[in-house]
Amino acid sequence: MKRTTISQIFADQDHFGGRTVTVCGWARTIRDMKTFGFIELNDGSCFKNLQIVFEDGVVENFKEIAKQNVGASFVVTGTVVLTPGAKQPLEVKAAAIEVEGPSAPEYPLQKKRHSVEYLRTIAHLRPRTNLFSAAFRVRSVAAHAIHCFFQDQGFVYVHTPIITASDCEGAGEMFRVTTLDMENPPRGEGGAVDYSQDFFGKSANLTVSGQLNAESFAMAFGNVYTFGPTFRAEKSNTTRHAAEFWMIEPEMAFCDLQGDMDVAEAMIKYIINTVMEKCPDEMAFFNSFVDKGLVERLSHVASSDFARVSYTEAVELLKNSGHKFEYPVDWGCDLQTEHERFLTEEVFRKPVFVTDYPKEIKAFYMRLNDDGRTVAAADCLVPGIGEIIGGSQREERLDLLEGRIRELGMDPEDYWWYLDLRRYGGTKHAGFGLGFERMVMYLTGVSNIRDVLPHPRTVGSADF
Amino acid sequence: MKRTTISQIFADQDHFGGRTVTVCGWARTIRDMKTFGFIELNDGSCFKNLQIVFEDGVVENFKEIAKQNVGASFVVTGTVVLTPGAKQPLEVKAAAIEVEGPSAPEYPLQKKRHSVEYLRTIAHLRPRTNLFSAAFRVRSVAAHAIHCFFQDQGFVYVHTPIITASDCEGAGEMFRVTTLDMENPPRGEGGAVDYSQDFFGKSANLTVSGQLNAESFAMAFGNVYTFGPTFRAEKSNTTRHAAEFWMIEPEMAFCDLQGDMDVAEAMIKYIINTVMEKCPDEMAFFNSFVDKGLVERLSHVASSDFARVSYTEAVELLKNSGHKFEYPVDWGCDLQTEHERFLTEEVFRKPVFVTDYPKEIKAFYMRLNDDGRTVAAADCLVPGIGEIIGGSQREERLDLLEGRIRELGMDPEDYWWYLDLRRYGGTKHAGFGLGFERMVMYLTGVSNIRDVLPHPRTVGSADF
Repeated sequence: MKRTTISQIFADQDHFGGRTVTVCGWARTIRDMKTFGFIELNDGSCFKNLQIVFEDGVVENFKEIAKQNVGASFVVTGTVVLTPGAKQPLEVKAAAIEVEGPSAPEYPLQKKRHSVEYLRTIAHLRPRTNLFSAAFRVRSVAAHAIHCFFQDQGFVYVHTPIITASDCEGAGEMFRVTTLDMENPPRGEGGAVDYSQDFFGKSANLTVSGQLNAESFAMAFGNVYTFGPTFRAEKSNTTRHAAEFWMIEPEMAFCDLQGDMDVAEAMIKYIINTVMEKCPDEMAFFNSFVDKGLVERLSHVASSDFARVSYTEAVELLKNSGHKFEYPVDWGCDLQTEHERFLTEEVFRKPVFVTDYPKEIKAFYMRLNDDGRTVAAADCLVPGIGEIIGGSQREERLDLLEGRIRELGMDPEDYWWYLDLRRYGGTKHAGFGLGFERMVMYLTGVSNIRDVLPHPRTVGSADF
Repeated sequence: MKRTTISQIFADQDHFGGRTVTVCGWARTIRDMKTFGFIELNDGSCFKNLQIVFEDGVVENFKEIAKQNVGASFVVTGTVVLTPGAKQPLEVKAAAIEVEGPSAPEYPLQKKRHSVEYLRTIAHLRPRTNLFSAAFRVRSVAAHAIHCFFQDQGFVYVHTPIITASDCEGAGEMFRVTTLDMENPPRGEGGAVDYSQDFFGKSANLTVSGQLNAESFAMAFGNVYTFGPTFRAEKSNTTRHAAEFWMIEPEMAFCDLQGDMDVAEAMIKYIINTVMEKCPDEMAFFNSFVDKGLVERLSHVASSDFARVSYTEAVELLKNSGHKFEYPVDWGCDLQTEHERFLTEEVFRKPVFVTDYPKEIKAFYMRLNDDGRTVAAADCLVPGIGEIIGGSQREERLDLLEGRIRELGMDPEDYWWYLDLRRYGGTKHAGFGLGFERMVMYLTGVSNIRDVLPHPRTVGSADF
């Protein structure tokens, strides 16, 4: 048997019209009209279903097929018939149908609308629904688009480590990784747990960012990027936070903050254009059933320049907006999601980079501006999401970086190799982090991060 | 300043000859010939260096440049001069050179050969050497080739979870992931650690494989693949084991073991061909300095059919070989690396799939053959490495799978969702796992896994 995918048939209708094919897939619906029947077959190769018509007397096991349950898998051999004018452009008239695997009567995905909350409890089956089929295909296409974007420009992909023995970023709560016996861990003289006996000979955690490691590779390859999982052990039970998520972190030598924003903007446009081109059916679905303005909004973003505004100006805009915020805004405070969304949704009505934040609210490695009180950071805010990218030019001046580390009560010794990068041929450099799930939410209009993660890990939940 | 990369100049010599360019990079060597000097500049955009000639009187800060240390970074503006007949096809005559970042006198990468063991202690600098520059670029190109191979055929990329609350695979030792206070964890009534108070509400680990999750997506999308980090807490301190490594795991519905091997073989050939085409300088370097027969061997593999032999036949071949093995071989025993390498290096002299292993030495999910004692497994063995791929057709028959789970003393309840995939439209399906680092070792001839991992994590070591 030579199998043809449904995507191949739809992509080349003239070729397949009149030909005999064998298609394999799962029934989304089965209708028994007594002397004939219809199967809406989906094989996962594309969003669309293929209509199978089967007739008593032609298909010899008609009764067996007609009584199958939704979700059953079939191998169908038949002729492709073009049906111009009909709802679908073509169908397959079955000559033979084989039940590959039946579907038990209690199959949870009967033909009715289920809540996303319910579907999360059957994460092993939800990719068979329109919503999740579309979301996870867009996720896959977007991931590949990101690789192509960077690889085509000569960026080197670096797999930065997942397990780290440092907490250099110091960003939020981390997960411990251990092989010690939790019931009875080895203890040192003072009674404290003796991590020298742990697997790595010291205390270890899951990474929160690959940036510092990526910087060391940027100082060799010029342009690099990471694309891997990162972790936060924050107990935030929101629609935007997950304990495990994927991040893209490019890092570029000989690049300043303007260049950094140029790359970020070009990347977002490239991802949008690629997904709109490769997933038209999925995007039409999201536009109809999830977020009415989606396609228009994304098209607008892909074709317009992102705004750029300094933090100082942004704070003025917010203060003078007359809008009542839950959290008051003033120079020096961190922007809340409500502020970010107001800026991008109400003030600029498109993506906006907010730059040059007060140093106190940003990470130690960001480059100090000449004003002595702001750093060369740039966060990209997008409508419906808020912050999607956080970037900065990095502090390349050894004395300033060391000073900042000390100022924050950290020990420069812990950063010996990171500081080395400034001792030996340091360069101006910059980079950013894109939260991949937020990007997929932005692309699809899906509003809960749990519904763009194949198997979401959140506080209290690590099923499947 | 519009920056030109060295790779652009070498790729389009006719265009750049005679033109003024600005290049940025790091000095691999600097030679001061009193009235003029040479810099071998590397910018990481390609393996090759660019020769910069700078002359006293032309470059106004000649003395400053001439006294710079190896490793310093420069911004050079000058004219590209084609030099047919010379060792290098072109050089840049500098008009102006700016020191972007000096390199301190104790820079560890002076121009001499360092041992790989020493270079592992400066993992933040080793990508600046020829060996690691080549290895990590090949790694990046191979990773992208894998994405392209699958995406071009319509496979959906699935990010299977890193943190899992099941140990479904039961494969070897796992790392615990926890936010409990190790010094004083909460305990239940009997005194045992109370994992219901841990972050996920239960005991959690780092994944050893995304396969079971990938299967659930294959039952929706047909063809899927994973590419992500996996973990083993085995204390094996060998040249082939790391605690953290990357795996590729395709999973295909409506596919049997023959189809599985076809995809695996096509994938390996595609990776080899892509790397040979995109990294000619790197491959020439490995062929000269790391593994003399490398390019010839890889070319041979890319153009010949892989052998296929059953485990039963393979055992006979080994027993009748007259070769003295450290571990004796007999039907029923697991093949050791020495056996695997003998088969691929001495018997077949090319990659070989060994199929249909005794069920006792393989995982519970592999499909039982009609003989009742072997399973439809296929391991791919390659010269110099041994096993690089482990694959199988999966058991799609609910009763047999459940029986096997019980037989092994496991609880079918723990596998409820995995078994569901056989209840609701189950299909014949198959997949495999490729150890990415082993693939990179195979491509480069590098013999220690620590030298193809950007920041290796092994027992007792998680630096950088």
